[in-house]
Amino acid sequence: MTVLGHAAESRFTGPPNLQTHRKGQTVLVLGAGLAGMLAAYELRKAGYSVRILEYQARTGGRNWTLRGGDRVAEMGGAVQDVKFAAGNYINPGPWRVPYHHRALLHYCRAFGVSLEPFIQLNYNALVHSSDTFGGKPQRYRDVAADFTGNVAELLAKSIDAHTLDKELTQEDRARVREAMRGWGVLDADMRYTSTLHLGSRRGWDQRPGGGPDGAPVPVSTSSLLDRHDLFAPPVWQALSYFMNYEMQTTMFQPVGGVDMIGKGFAAQVSDLFTMNARVTRIAQDDHGVSVSWTHTETGATSVEKADWCVCTIPLSILSQIDVQVSPAMRAAIGAVPYTSHIKMGLEFKRRFWEEDEGIYGGISFTSQEISQISYPSYGFHKPGPAVLLGAYTKNMAGLDIAGMTPAERIELGLRQGEVFHSQYRKEFSNGVAVAWSRMPGSLGCCAMWSEESRKQHYRNLTTMDGRVVLAGEHASYLGCWQEGALLSSLDAISQLNKRAQAN
Amino acid sequence: MTVLGHAAESRFTGPPNLQTHRKGQTVLVLGAGLAGMLAAYELRKAGYSVRILEYQARTGGRNWTLRGGDRVAEMGGAVQDVKFAAGNYINPGPWRVPYHHRALLHYCRAFGVSLEPFIQLNYNALVHSSDTFGGKPQRYRDVAADFTGNVAELLAKSIDAHTLDKELTQEDRARVREAMRGWGVLDADMRYTSTLHLGSRRGWDQRPGGGPDGAPVPVSTSSLLDRHDLFAPPVWQALSYFMNYEMQTTMFQPVGGVDMIGKGFAAQVSDLFTMNARVTRIAQDDHGVSVSWTHTETGATSVEKADWCVCTIPLSILSQIDVQVSPAMRAAIGAVPYTSHIKMGLEFKRRFWEEDEGIYGGISFTSQEISQISYPSYGFHKPGPAVLLGAYTKNMAGLDIAGMTPAERIELGLRQGEVFHSQYRKEFSNGVAVAWSRMPGSLGCCAMWSEESRKQHYRNLTTMDGRVVLAGEHASYLGCWQEGALLSSLDAISQLNKRAQAN
Repeated sequence: MTVLGHAAESRFTGPPNLQTHRKGQTVLVLGAGLAGMLAAYELRKAGYSVRILEYQARTGGRNWTLRGGDRVAEMGGAVQDVKFAAGNYINPGPWRVPYHHRALLHYCRAFGVSLEPFIQLNYNALVHSSDTFGGKPQRYRDVAADFTGNVAELLAKSIDAHTLDKELTQEDRARVREAMRGWGVLDADMRYTSTLHLGSRRGWDQRPGGGPDGAPVPVSTSSLLDRHDLFAPPVWQALSYFMNYEMQTTMFQPVGGVDMIGKGFAAQVSDLFTMNARVTRIAQDDHGVSVSWTHTETGATSVEKADWCVCTIPLSILSQIDVQVSPAMRAAIGAVPYTSHIKMGLEFKRRFWEEDEGIYGGISFTSQEISQISYPSYGFHKPGPAVLLGAYTKNMAGLDIAGMTPAERIELGLRQGEVFHSQYRKEFSNGVAVAWSRMPGSLGCCAMWSEESRKQHYRNLTTMDGRVVLAGEHASYLGCWQEGALLSSLDAISQLNKRAQAN
Repeated sequence: MTVLGHAAESRFTGPPNLQTHRKGQTVLVLGAGLAGMLAAYELRKAGYSVRILEYQARTGGRNWTLRGGDRVAEMGGAVQDVKFAAGNYINPGPWRVPYHHRALLHYCRAFGVSLEPFIQLNYNALVHSSDTFGGKPQRYRDVAADFTGNVAELLAKSIDAHTLDKELTQEDRARVREAMRGWGVLDADMRYTSTLHLGSRRGWDQRPGGGPDGAPVPVSTSSLLDRHDLFAPPVWQALSYFMNYEMQTTMFQPVGGVDMIGKGFAAQVSDLFTMNARVTRIAQDDHGVSVSWTHTETGATSVEKADWCVCTIPLSILSQIDVQVSPAMRAAIGAVPYTSHIKMGLEFKRRFWEEDEGIYGGISFTSQEISQISYPSYGFHKPGPAVLLGAYTKNMAGLDIAGMTPAERIELGLRQGEVFHSQYRKEFSNGVAVAWSRMPGSLGCCAMWSEESRKQHYRNLTTMDGRVVLAGEHASYLGCWQEGALLSSLDAISQLNKRAQAN
């Protein structure tokens, strides 16, 4: 298909062709997240009669965007009213789409969801760790240049010391040496030091300009970063982050908020939803499935029957429901803990990161609990308030911070963010902090498989049990990603269809 | 101003404050490119009476966008009619705006020019050289991972061989070793080889999926790239390209074409233009400047008088005009050759690079004359025809190709582009190839300063001579960039204003 013949590597080569020859069988889909909506969409297309039960009052599940006027109610009773200005938003759950998530990209295209670049790597963003560089944040540009330069200098020295004579031919030693000189921007003596040429990586103390006095002034050698600190984990981890397959550019975001994807799916199956339905029991026998549910507002109870069931309820919730499946699947459902990330959206009165510092999108890293700040990849140069991602905590820090009130979480976000931006307090307007462990719909952010639990439970979880098949990011090897939810869903409905044809 | 206090490094800290106390002095600006329009805008704001003479029938100069219906007429008589579909375009001149070009970004913001991310680094784009990897193009992702891995393995080996014991403390040796393991994705034995973990850089032979059989399959060790070839210049040059200060992300492009910038400037000074004016002589004495010009359509001649003159005519043209300045400035004007780049815009019937290969924006490099292909950073997933940059030649290759007819140039673009994309011929629709050496307005792409000519002539070129001051990218240390033109212009008008105040 292509010059490189790499198309085969994808799990997704197009929408499924389910070829049902027994039209009109009924399917009950539990959960109106991406996995559930995709299952409903494709199964109906194939001739099934589908309904979707959803616990929340909105579709999309963790595919969710918060805007001014939205309310976040969490377990424990805390309520946050989002006060962002019109046009501003934060995506508390998934927020970006890598170039190789072919299924998600396919459906975005099919459903008319507009995409725009999400800026991952910004050389002008910052890297901070309390243990390195005296706790002073450094430009990604500078740490990248200095790390590369130091690696190149050390390797070139080793070649000159004949350490690698057995490893490399004489020709290759010269070749690697020259590569190190160019790639590392070493000087004539193979040292990494400040030269005019280093401006091509590091920038300048005084940038090139116009007119008679336009000559650039290189950064001083004393401003080059300390080698000991350059090889600290926070540095190479930041460099590695952007090389990571799931984080590599080109990266996208839906124009206007990630829930444009959820809305794109929902529009295709809008007549199939029953909202506010808390599932209390999933039973099955040889003849069909019956799902008991309670209306979250009226308290009315119902039993819904169907030939088949696709259950996309997160395991954190499903493990608390009476589900009539094999002991092996039951054990799997109970075996997977969920992550507890926290994401904060902070609105500031102006885009000081752009105006004062030339930071447009991208991510600044810190060793503090907030872990990162991500600047908006939309509305560049727009006057007025803007929202950035003020925290995207690691799992354990998220659990701690979930114990705080929303106001305390925001305070922590401001305090820690100030390490990057002294404008933080002065320009702050309002914020929202979503603690996933307290979100009623999922009680966590996503499934946290270990190598061990994967070995023991994954196949049992994902293999259709009688008339019930599970789907969602938890039923994939691409956990925490929307693509995982979609690929899982496509696999689940293919299992279902196969069994329905055999029945 | 900021935590890092780096704001001082910029040449631009805001629009100039010229504080004229002698209002109404007249200035003649020659050339309606960015430098000329900015000079006119700021001088008028300061109280000068300004007019602009422009040779071409359009404003913007090299800030130029070609769309369907446009015509390109070049020296030698060749004419190309652009046949792109509505909404498609190519920028034959400047096309992108780095995050640190503060003057350009300032005026984009001030004049309401919308910006969107320009995708530079795309890990799924390709690197090709006829001399490496058997002439087969490789994914940037793969060459980056394998280069990094090999560097890390070689450096770790050198540490283990105690070569660097004098260079690094024992603690740092352990630290660098661990950094190499993480950054280079080395295995437990510090070898760069295919492991499950390498999927985090290289991707997979079979990507992670959903359902029981979703486990990923790592790339085979045999597919790792040859070390000898990995250290060839085309590889480290491609890696270095994206680390280059002028090429680092975040990078922008104006929404809708780069000429949105030119139009933004032109709207501010729309009443000042005299178009189709070929300048034939620039004379000056103690009392003022007089510029002779001929109307390019009617042949009518005129002489325009003013107190001062800002001349932004490219040196390639100016050197052919009778200019009454000091011998030193005259020598400088004649001393700078111009580059001869060629850019081709190729329109294809569909976005096969996105649909078939998952390439969204970014640049593929080749050792062939076309040098690079750049995929559009706008209109992602749009059905129907799309335009990519099919060639952006190096200087010498550009001169050769300028000798061909436009049709021959396009044929070369197609032939060489096929090395990346077998769909090229089948999907091709139409194209345009702009040879800058043949463009009447500039007879070249931009000024090509050498270290020697810079030393000898730059100051003479950029220092105001009597009542005439030169401006443009050629009068800056940031040649070939729009920012250079603006910074030069700001310096020139500040020289002019100073002299006008002293007079």
